[in-house]
Amino acid sequence: MKTVKLTIAYDGLKYSGWQRQINTQDTIEEKIEDALSTLVGQKINIEASGRTDKGVHALGQVASFRANFVIPVENIPQAIPGFLPEDIVITKAEEMDKDFHARYHSKGKKYIYKIYNNEFPNPIYRNYSYYVKKPIDIDKLKKAAKYFVGKHDFKSFMTNKTSVKTTTRNIYNIDVYKKDDFIILEYSGDGFLYNMVRIITGTLVEVCIGKKDIDEIPNIIASKNRNNAGHTAPAHGLYLVEVYY
Amino acid sequence: MKTVKLTIAYDGLKYSGWQRQINTQDTIEEKIEDALSTLVGQKINIEASGRTDKGVHALGQVASFRANFVIPVENIPQAIPGFLPEDIVITKAEEMDKDFHARYHSKGKKYIYKIYNNEFPNPIYRNYSYYVKKPIDIDKLKKAAKYFVGKHDFKSFMTNKTSVKTTTRNIYNIDVYKKDDFIILEYSGDGFLYNMVRIITGTLVEVCIGKKDIDEIPNIIASKNRNNAGHTAPAHGLYLVEVYY
Repeated sequence: MKTVKLTIAYDGLKYSGWQRQINTQDTIEEKIEDALSTLVGQKINIEASGRTDKGVHALGQVASFRANFVIPVENIPQAIPGFLPEDIVITKAEEMDKDFHARYHSKGKKYIYKIYNNEFPNPIYRNYSYYVKKPIDIDKLKKAAKYFVGKHDFKSFMTNKTSVKTTTRNIYNIDVYKKDDFIILEYSGDGFLYNMVRIITGTLVEVCIGKKDIDEIPNIIASKNRNNAGHTAPAHGLYLVEVYY
Repeated sequence: MKTVKLTIAYDGLKYSGWQRQINTQDTIEEKIEDALSTLVGQKINIEASGRTDKGVHALGQVASFRANFVIPVENIPQAIPGFLPEDIVITKAEEMDKDFHARYHSKGKKYIYKIYNNEFPNPIYRNYSYYVKKPIDIDKLKKAAKYFVGKHDFKSFMTNKTSVKTTTRNIYNIDVYKKDDFIILEYSGDGFLYNMVRIITGTLVEVCIGKKDIDEIPNIIASKNRNNAGHTAPAHGLYLVEVYY
C-alpha cells in the first residue's frame, strides 16, 4: 500500500469547483480521480487539502490517496497528462508515511488574489484577475491589510454555508505588492473560512476606492456580521498557491 | 467627417483572426465594425495596421476609419464596451488628420512572443504562451537572436500564402529576457512577413534545445528556403503590442 501526496495546478475557469458533484462531471476532483483510476487500474479516491470554489484557480493544491499499485509514485506527473484535460496539471507526486492525509495534516495555506488595476480592462487577464477601474492607492491598501493580520474572529468575512466549530483564524501575513498593472495580495494563514479571502479582498478594495473608511475595519471585524463587510471579490482572481504541512 | 485612430487589445483565442470572413462571424474586425456601427448609427468600415492570425493576441493593434458622427471621438472607449464582447477592448480613440490610414502610414511594429519554460506546463498560461519543456539557455537565445537583427531577406521565415513585393525586412531589435518562468522575445521592425515572428521563434527554440546548431543560422537565412528554418511557433504565444507611426 502506498500513500501518495500530489501537488496540483489548475485553471478553475471551466469547472464547477474542486468537489465531486452528483449533477455535473465538471469538477476537478472527478477529472483527477478518473485519470488516476485509469492510470493505476483501480478506483482511486483522493482527498484534497480543502475544496476550491467554482472558478478559483490553483498552482499548489495538495491531495492525497492510498492504493496498491505498481507504477513508481514519482512517475505519476509524467505518465498522467494523457488522461487529464490540459487545464489540470499534476506537478509533483511523493510517497509519504502511510498516515499522511492532505486535509487533516494541513497546517495552513497560502492564497494569492490578483487585481488588475488600470483605466481599461486587459482582455488577456479577464478570467485570471479581478478588474478594478478606480486607481488603488497601494500604501492605503498595505495599511488596511494590516488590520486583518493576526488571530481574529472572522465571522464578518464568511459566507454562511457550512457549519464550522470556530470562526477564529490566524492570518500569519498579508503581503501586498504591485507587479506591472496588477496588485497582488498574498494571504498566508492557519486556515480560511468559506469565501474569507474573497470577502476580505472585496472589503479592502472598497476601502481603497473610498467606499468604506479605513477606520471602520476594526468595527467591521468586531461586529461579527457579514452585512458590514464588503462584497465578495470574484472567484477568478483567487489562486490557492501553497498548502503548509 | 472625422478620421479616427483606435488602439485595440484582444484575446485572440476564440477568433478566426482579425480579418472579416464570409463563412464565419468570429473575426475581430467584424465584432468591432458591428459595435462601432451600432454606436455611431451608420455602417463603419475599419482598416487595421495589418491582420493578425487565428489565435494571435493584441495589446496595441491599431485601426482607423472615417465617418461623420456626433459622439466625441475620445468618448468611444468608454461608450463602446456594451456593444463589444469582453475579450475585445478599445483602449484609446484619437481624432487624426483626415488622411491618416492605419496600414499605409504604419512605420513598423512591435510584437512580443511569450515562452513558458518549465518542467511542467502551467494551466493558467496555456492559451497565452508557448510551453517549452526543455530548459532554454537564455544566453544562447540572446546570441542566436542577434543573427536576425538588421536588414535581411527573410524568405526562409515566411509562410508562402500571399504575394509580397519584397521579402526583405529590417528588424530593429530583438530583446530577450526572463520574467518568472517566462522567456519573452520582443521583436521590433519595419514590418514582418506572414508568420515571420513565429517561424523565427520556432527556429530560435530549436537552436536553444539543441535541434539546430547556432552556426547554421546564417546559412538558413541565406538559403531563402522555408524548409531550412524551424517550426512555426504556435499563435497563442504571439502578441501585437505596438504599431509605430
